Amino acid sequence: MSHKVLLDYGSGGRASHRLIRDLFLKHLHSPGLSRLDDAALIQDLSGPLAMSTDTFTIYPLFFPGGDIGSLAVHGTVNDVAMLGAVPKYLSCAFLLEEGLEMHELEKIVRSMALAANNCGVQVITGDTKVVPRGAADRIFINTTGIGRVIADPAPSGSSAEPGDAVLISGTMGDHGLAVLAHRQGMDFETAIISDSRPLNDLTVQLIREVGQIHVFRDPTRGGLATTLNEIALQSALEIIILEDRIPVSQEVQAGCSFLGLDPLYMANEGKFICILPEILADKALKVMRSHTAGKDAALIGHVQEGHRGRVVLRTSLGGQRLLDMLEGEQLPRIC
Amino acid sequence: MSHKVLLDYGSGGRASHRLIRDLFLKHLHSPGLSRLDDAALIQDLSGPLAMSTDTFTIYPLFFPGGDIGSLAVHGTVNDVAMLGAVPKYLSCAFLLEEGLEMHELEKIVRSMALAANNCGVQVITGDTKVVPRGAADRIFINTTGIGRVIADPAPSGSSAEPGDAVLISGTMGDHGLAVLAHRQGMDFETAIISDSRPLNDLTVQLIREVGQIHVFRDPTRGGLATTLNEIALQSALEIIILEDRIPVSQEVQAGCSFLGLDPLYMANEGKFICILPEILADKALKVMRSHTAGKDAALIGHVQEGHRGRVVLRTSLGGQRLLDMLEGEQLPRIC
Repeated sequence: MSHKVLLDYGSGGRASHRLIRDLFLKHLHSPGLSRLDDAALIQDLSGPLAMSTDTFTIYPLFFPGGDIGSLAVHGTVNDVAMLGAVPKYLSCAFLLEEGLEMHELEKIVRSMALAANNCGVQVITGDTKVVPRGAADRIFINTTGIGRVIADPAPSGSSAEPGDAVLISGTMGDHGLAVLAHRQGMDFETAIISDSRPLNDLTVQLIREVGQIHVFRDPTRGGLATTLNEIALQSALEIIILEDRIPVSQEVQAGCSFLGLDPLYMANEGKFICILPEILADKALKVMRSHTAGKDAALIGHVQEGHRGRVVLRTSLGGQRLLDMLEGEQLPRIC
Repeated sequence: MSHKVLLDYGSGGRASHRLIRDLFLKHLHSPGLSRLDDAALIQDLSGPLAMSTDTFTIYPLFFPGGDIGSLAVHGTVNDVAMLGAVPKYLSCAFLLEEGLEMHELEKIVRSMALAANNCGVQVITGDTKVVPRGAADRIFINTTGIGRVIADPAPSGSSAEPGDAVLISGTMGDHGLAVLAHRQGMDFETAIISDSRPLNDLTVQLIREVGQIHVFRDPTRGGLATTLNEIALQSALEIIILEDRIPVSQEVQAGCSFLGLDPLYMANEGKFICILPEILADKALKVMRSHTAGKDAALIGHVQEGHRGRVVLRTSLGGQRLLDMLEGEQLPRIC
């Protein structure tokens, strides 16, 4: 194969087949993928199912704590997990710019394979398109995931109830700040590392050992503040958050303060919000804190009747302010 | 909303929500999509399942007989159908370039909605990313589809058997030539129109009324010649094709001859190959010809032991030549 991606690799012809065999199948082998049919056959999955899709356009492709490949696996696996499901299969569609370095592509595919393995999912069907130079920025990846929903009923942003506790699985803002700092070539004294990681192991444990999960949601684009607003709107309730309970690492706090950014609006790729009856909060926190994905878990607030769709932040000084949804783009191409 | 796509529309914040509500939900309404959760919940689908993904990068976005929106629905629906399945749900991920005209996006989304309706599928989950000007060429769309496999066993490129008949559902080369001609601004006397259309209604009918389908495959990128080569390789058998049996419209024949192109290597988006026991060929042809998707169906050859992975074309003059797989790109961005 050439050391750069050629237009021919997206042709569907012989060159495409070589790319599939020598690169994709080499790393992402699974019984489904190796059949090379138009679609993958799934024999061992029964409903109810969760299905989620995401296209990843992150820039730069490689960042501290991950790359577009691992992120594309974690992101979709986590979205499937948020519906109370066990993620099982992924499709993976590559959109490549002519001229992309093959060694970069291989590094990304290898990272996807490792991430899929860590999450317990298989890539079973795929697609590759190559567009001419200038028609795309190096590589975009779409992953679509499916899995079996094991929570009954399935958690939903619209299922929060008055009296529910709001938990968060860890520190806020790490992914957004890590990507931004790396993009700008900033060096902080302590490296800030993306939190990109799978969450499905912990969410499944919470469903099985605690139950009654009303909401799971990962605060990715728009951060914690925007995601809580979505939930408040969907459930038509008010959410009260206590500022000094929100875990933010010292490094992220310092970095955000230096750059004038708010960690509550920064993207996370390895954290989730869990909303459930207050009486189960301690049990859920215990489960979360004994798992590496939830070691910094905290109870940060509660849900109440009141102004529908509103999120209120109680500050450490006793004041309170509305925590609004992000209007536009704080930081493009973060995922 | 602005009359052009802004970076803010991909932020996950308020601007994204407006785009989802005022554009995507307006046209693509489905119970799953309106829940606005991280993943869609599917209650009414049991296995075995077929899953397929495709990213569409076609240029130009609008062409005689379709557009990127309808193509993105038909393409994935057809790939799911080729596994002997009833396509049911689609995910849809938009990758937009900042500055894309909103009226174009709306036209595309409306076309997707219409196509999904015609195919009997629902778009149940989605994603929107916006990248800065120059980082993508206007719009790319990924669709991933799932459905229930009703053929037992599921057809596969590896299931052709010696003695099987090779049928094709209609004329070859229409999509590829239509896109190429439109791209180059060529005017033929008779307009050449893409054959982009759903095939699932006819494939389901063939499974139910004829049965024993060994292979379904749609000859898209690389055309009939490349797809037959894939099947010959997967099944480790030889395929013999009779040139004068292959339906090609007069317009496509004239256009291809004028441009020096071979219709057997041109992409199709509304045709399929059907391979099944010779004894069932007449029955299958009858079913195909009484359906609009198969009115020009023809028996074009057979499968035999012999040189594994080889496709031989018997010409009208009695000669024969190897029909090789396309090496590289005959025409980029055809789907």
